[in-house]
Amino acid sequence: MAIVKRLAEVPPRDMSNGTDVVGVLKRVLIGPADGAPTFAVRLFTLAPGGNTPAHTHPFEHGVVVLRGTGTVLTPNGRVPIGEGTTVFVPPGEHHQFQNTGPGPLEFLCVIPVGYET
Amino acid sequence: MAIVKRLAEVPPRDMSNGTDVVGVLKRVLIGPADGAPTFAVRLFTLAPGGNTPAHTHPFEHGVVVLRGTGTVLTPNGRVPIGEGTTVFVPPGEHHQFQNTGPGPLEFLCVIPVGYET
Repeated sequence: MAIVKRLAEVPPRDMSNGTDVVGVLKRVLIGPADGAPTFAVRLFTLAPGGNTPAHTHPFEHGVVVLRGTGTVLTPNGRVPIGEGTTVFVPPGEHHQFQNTGPGPLEFLCVIPVGYET
Repeated sequence: MAIVKRLAEVPPRDMSNGTDVVGVLKRVLIGPADGAPTFAVRLFTLAPGGNTPAHTHPFEHGVVVLRGTGTVLTPNGRVPIGEGTTVFVPPGEHHQFQNTGPGPLEFLCVIPVGYET
């Protein structure tokens, strides 16, 4: 059966760890708990000055920026992102998202469902 | 290498067919042309009064509504959707998206990449 949610109903999880993850909230919009067979859709909210870890993993990211401004780290350096930017990070590539703006940076990040924990 | 796109750079494809698909533009934000291995991310824009086909297929949809108001057809009838609504349509379930508002209805729709044509 179709599952319809409002974003406001999805509780955030604070991913900040005091070291390399700063000011990061995550909401799993579609994931294993919904019986999703292939991919998971997550919403990330980075506070001003916040960042995800600079890391590498064997799966890809499909990112769509909904709000705010920031950068994504790529092998060619940091590239500006903002509302309406789409980023495909291929498997095995080093990357990091940073909020460089005055307000929240919100983006959707899709991954293969088996990696959503 | 990471692929960074602005939505304005992605050309729309008019999916309208004069019968059961009305006022539907599709943009493939992440898909086979990007080397995406698992999933494709598409942006759909439905004009006022527009609708996708009422149909069933063997793969799931992961939908996030970005703008506008409409409905999604489910086995329990039509459910209202709007900005910030997330819809998971499981494989094999009959469904349709309709724009019931005065402006465009925009939503992201993620599918397994093998079904993106």
